[in-house]
Amino acid sequence: MTDWLDRLTGDGLVANRLSETAQIADMLRVEATYARACGHAGKVPLDMAEAAAAAIDAVSIDRAVLAEAALRDGMPVPGLVMQIKAQVAASLHSAVHQGLTSQDVMDTALILALREILEDLEDRIQRLLTVLDTLEARFGDRPLMGRTRMQAALPVTAGHRIAGWRAPWDDHLARLDGMRPRLLKLQLGGPVGTRDSFDGFGDAIAGHMGSALGLEVPGKAWHTERSNLFELACWLAGVAGSLGKIGTDLALMAQQGVDEVGFASGGASSAMAHKSNPVRAELLVALSRDMAGHLAAQHLTLNHEQERSGASWTLEWLVLPRMLTGCGAALTAALDVLADIDQIGGSAL
Amino acid sequence: MTDWLDRLTGDGLVANRLSETAQIADMLRVEATYARACGHAGKVPLDMAEAAAAAIDAVSIDRAVLAEAALRDGMPVPGLVMQIKAQVAASLHSAVHQGLTSQDVMDTALILALREILEDLEDRIQRLLTVLDTLEARFGDRPLMGRTRMQAALPVTAGHRIAGWRAPWDDHLARLDGMRPRLLKLQLGGPVGTRDSFDGFGDAIAGHMGSALGLEVPGKAWHTERSNLFELACWLAGVAGSLGKIGTDLALMAQQGVDEVGFASGGASSAMAHKSNPVRAELLVALSRDMAGHLAAQHLTLNHEQERSGASWTLEWLVLPRMLTGCGAALTAALDVLADIDQIGGSAL
Amino acid sequence: MTDWLDRLTGDGLVANRLSETAQIADMLRVEATYARACGHAGKVPLDMAEAAAAAIDAVSIDRAVLAEAALRDGMPVPGLVMQIKAQVAASLHSAVHQGLTSQDVMDTALILALREILEDLEDRIQRLLTVLDTLEARFGDRPLMGRTRMQAALPVTAGHRIAGWRAPWDDHLARLDGMRPRLLKLQLGGPVGTRDSFDGFGDAIAGHMGSALGLEVPGKAWHTERSNLFELACWLAGVAGSLGKIGTDLALMAQQGVDEVGFASGGASSAMAHKSNPVRAELLVALSRDMAGHLAAQHLTLNHEQERSGASWTLEWLVLPRMLTGCGAALTAALDVLADIDQIGGSAL
Amino acid sequence: MTDWLDRLTGDGLVANRLSETAQIADMLRVEATYARACGHAGKVPLDMAEAAAAAIDAVSIDRAVLAEAALRDGMPVPGLVMQIKAQVAASLHSAVHQGLTSQDVMDTALILALREILEDLEDRIQRLLTVLDTLEARFGDRPLMGRTRMQAALPVTAGHRIAGWRAPWDDHLARLDGMRPRLLKLQLGGPVGTRDSFDGFGDAIAGHMGSALGLEVPGKAWHTERSNLFELACWLAGVAGSLGKIGTDLALMAQQGVDEVGFASGGASSAMAHKSNPVRAELLVALSRDMAGHLAAQHLTLNHEQERSGASWTLEWLVLPRMLTGCGAALTAALDVLADIDQIGGSAL
Repeated sequence: MTDWLDRLTGDGLVANRLSETAQIADMLRVEATYARACGHAGKVPLDMAEAAAAAIDAVSIDRAVLAEAALRDGMPVPGLVMQIKAQVAASLHSAVHQGLTSQDVMDTALILALREILEDLEDRIQRLLTVLDTLEARFGDRPLMGRTRMQAALPVTAGHRIAGWRAPWDDHLARLDGMRPRLLKLQLGGPVGTRDSFDGFGDAIAGHMGSALGLEVPGKAWHTERSNLFELACWLAGVAGSLGKIGTDLALMAQQGVDEVGFASGGASSAMAHKSNPVRAELLVALSRDMAGHLAAQHLTLNHEQERSGASWTLEWLVLPRMLTGCGAALTAALDVLADIDQIGGSAL
Repeated sequence: MTDWLDRLTGDGLVANRLSETAQIADMLRVEATYARACGHAGKVPLDMAEAAAAAIDAVSIDRAVLAEAALRDGMPVPGLVMQIKAQVAASLHSAVHQGLTSQDVMDTALILALREILEDLEDRIQRLLTVLDTLEARFGDRPLMGRTRMQAALPVTAGHRIAGWRAPWDDHLARLDGMRPRLLKLQLGGPVGTRDSFDGFGDAIAGHMGSALGLEVPGKAWHTERSNLFELACWLAGVAGSLGKIGTDLALMAQQGVDEVGFASGGASSAMAHKSNPVRAELLVALSRDMAGHLAAQHLTLNHEQERSGASWTLEWLVLPRMLTGCGAALTAALDVLADIDQIGGSAL
Repeated sequence: MTDWLDRLTGDGLVANRLSETAQIADMLRVEATYARACGHAGKVPLDMAEAAAAAIDAVSIDRAVLAEAALRDGMPVPGLVMQIKAQVAASLHSAVHQGLTSQDVMDTALILALREILEDLEDRIQRLLTVLDTLEARFGDRPLMGRTRMQAALPVTAGHRIAGWRAPWDDHLARLDGMRPRLLKLQLGGPVGTRDSFDGFGDAIAGHMGSALGLEVPGKAWHTERSNLFELACWLAGVAGSLGKIGTDLALMAQQGVDEVGFASGGASSAMAHKSNPVRAELLVALSRDMAGHLAAQHLTLNHEQERSGASWTLEWLVLPRMLTGCGAALTAALDVLADIDQIGGSAL
Repeated sequence: MTDWLDRLTGDGLVANRLSETAQIADMLRVEATYARACGHAGKVPLDMAEAAAAAIDAVSIDRAVLAEAALRDGMPVPGLVMQIKAQVAASLHSAVHQGLTSQDVMDTALILALREILEDLEDRIQRLLTVLDTLEARFGDRPLMGRTRMQAALPVTAGHRIAGWRAPWDDHLARLDGMRPRLLKLQLGGPVGTRDSFDGFGDAIAGHMGSALGLEVPGKAWHTERSNLFELACWLAGVAGSLGKIGTDLALMAQQGVDEVGFASGGASSAMAHKSNPVRAELLVALSRDMAGHLAAQHLTLNHEQERSGASWTLEWLVLPRMLTGCGAALTAALDVLADIDQIGGSAL
């Protein structure tokens, strides 16, 4: 995350939360939580479960070895489990991963990351609302030419346009609230999603894991039911889309001849010293458009053949992180560009 | 809707509800409702309002003339209002459209159509659940090879796979319930969305219109806040995506050598008399993939510059009807293909 | 094609060439050409072939019956052949369709339509170039503010911006030339694409059909090799994209305060008599963005499983016609809006 | 490039060629080449030009400082030029970047990278053809059930299916040949693309730069004419799409009950020791579908407003590298999975 393009268009916080380091930590947490839950549910003796969980907590993962195994297996869990077992006493192995499938581990780990990322994104939205309120307070009553279909229509106030930027967020936040219980749920199904691999303790283990991890406990696995992740993708795209509208408006308002917005700072040109480019506004447009493509790809992951689709699952791994970082980057760019405004309205038209 | 391709891939019911005939009727209803509301709110005398509304109800629209005007204006409302005014006594004109903007009329008319279409689609989903229950009752305990990553994994039951098809629908229905109040709302803003064009009666008129039409009454216009229509597009795409998974599974199950499903009927080949093609299953896959592209385009409509975007609004008119008919077609195809199943499971593997 | 939305956003010429009526005529032409070619190649006696072809030429298709059959079979060819055979003497049936597969008929019929449509689109591009030349001649030396990143940069001329609109077309035309031989080719493969169903006369029949229809004769079937249609989709999207840039520029230039372009006419507003909306410019933007989604969907059709994919083929039928009409509509809108310009440049900035 | 997901789904070679390190080297090469060309063309004295070029060649860039500046300016060139000028004697500054615009530097640098990447990708395609030839030689005459619409149709040979995988590549290579001269061209336009900033030496400088860099020399800048990059995106997506078809076929052939292909190795399951997952085949499907979304986003970059679009240009930076690495990853995965095949055909059906 040090390249100029990452600095400009990425999101360090979100990317860190989705990094391999964080993912390994989450997967180990899931494995350890599973071990403990097996003990509490009665699948294995409680002391063995605790010992296994403690040993898993202490495991150190060689990432190069992990990557090598993932290249062969198409995902990291078999290699992860191999490394875990090599570091946990063989006498505890019946409390290690036994009954789980890779997807239980990776999906639950993902949900742990998503929960924190969504809290972070929600915080940024709250800050965005504060910045919009400040703009309204400072500039709300300034005159502005209302423009429809790119044409001067009737005079409005700056506050009317700011209200347009403010409009979607109550609904976006309501969607987020509605989505969370559908999204933030444990994955536990075993090899083919039936919970048959847990010696009859599957539901009890799920209950214990859900409590320990603070996740919803669905009655069955959602290995192939990815409408929750698609709903998340839609939410992320919607947020970025609403920010794209702000970016478009700002770029239009910053035009010479329109002159409806002023920024304290702006991007330099390598050729024209007089220019001050509305870089963050344009970035909002770019990030919003990028989402359109990602969303199409994420939609394709709904088609999860039979009891698990390697193709659709792999596609998710590619697309969802881009959408999460893109949404985060857009929120940060919006906060930056809106905070940089030192004038709105006052148009002579 | 008589071409073979429309018959195969379209949805007559949804298409009819979105037809020009229906749209004109909806727009006239909005105009008449507005006239009445102006009377109830006190903007114009009540009897004038009623007379105007009655006259609007009786208007007959020349569609060729309407299309000609729309070609010039980029939308049908100015031409519609011109035809209305030509058929309503000039003495009543101050109760006709005055204060409204085209988008108030078209958007509200769209919402009236969407409300009915969503009821229809929800009915089909309920029927789908019934069909799935029947399949579960008939075939649920038959043996089936569970397959993950396209490979035989462990034996499951037919019921387990059917449960996978059943899995998304409670959440899809919950999403629909959550979405309705955000979506099914009156549009009323006037030329630039400020409600300044209603002589101070804007909110009162909105209230009366909302009651008359049975729509939510938002505190302000949503001319440029299209996250509700985007949310609808996401819901439609999600529904079609979940059906695409069923289609993919059925096509895979119908393969010779796998032989996990049988159909009472199937599509003929022009070259091979022995073939019975799983046409509806393939159609579900095609319709689902088609949604990915539509959704990308619909996302772009969120970027609604300033107080109204002609480009984004036009794009909506192109994309959303395709998504509505595509989702309807997919639900019908799913009902057909699932009802046609006469065997699931029993795989020898 | 009489609805206002079709009039505004569609293309009557292209749509007619893709209509069911035209498609049936093309499919009958392919069937008759095949019959004749079987005679010339020696698969059936020449007089029988000629008689069969003449009989096919005289066939009248009941479209309602065709649609009913297509609904069952997932495509129209089996039903078409059934109607043909019912109207052609049984003694000639061995020269009717025997050896062909549905895809041979539908794909070749499509290519016949595409050839004409591409000629039509190329004509429009040539007219576009003429219109651009005229604009250059009339307004090329007028001053204009060059704008980069939406900001005033350095003065240029109107001619420089017009040159920007002119820039892509030589390459688009070169791409069209390069694409034609890859695209405009006969489809002939038989049931599974091997040409084994033609009694050893497959290549000879292909040669005769190619000559008769004026199409390239590939050495084998391209049932599942759809990169030619994808290349076409890319070309159509590219054309619409280049027109979208013109639309965006015109909408920006038409802004009050920028005032870099004037139109002889414009779209009316239902609420604001003073407005003249750049409807065609916005339409170019909408049609261009719509292409992004279509192109994503068309890309998915490349994935044509095994010897024929019903899902991918069906998806093609949905997507490609929209792209062809969308591209045609965009070219016409561009011609209209550019011809309507009565002033460029002269900006006071 | 060490994370497991990068190892599995990325392409180290392509990613390296697009890395910040390589981009900086390419941009410095462009700057130095420009300095020399200014000398050869007569814009500055030849010895000054050579001295400036040599000094630029020796410049060392602080990447952290570069990223900081890019964050402000929205791109790296102004910050790069600042670092260059700080390390080159002030007496030579009139030969450093003067007359250029950022886009001249970044676009030409991109083209230098694309040229090498395309050579690399073409090499892989050639190797793919060799692998396919080998498969044909080893297994071509084995019996295989031809399958259309996912249904057993008629017996074919393994060679027929392999021929289907082989089919698109001659055309893809022809497209690549046709595209290269349109794509691999110098960018030189100055601030607003007019070549007015080169004191009358613009065309001469362009000629010298083209010779030095081995690039086509277009008569004018293509700052806003991005159909060449879109054509590249289409080509990359087409290649990945054709590989996706191979992946789909292999995954279908590897199903138990179908058993038409065998692999020497396969991916392990964390839960089922008996499984051997067709990881690379699924990866081909995932990478192909991912392209659909990218292509939609890349299409949007065609809409390059006025004399430079910050939004569209930024979007390009995001999308094109993903498409290049995705295409590279797909080619490598295809080579791997095809080379791993140890049996095709012989199906008992």
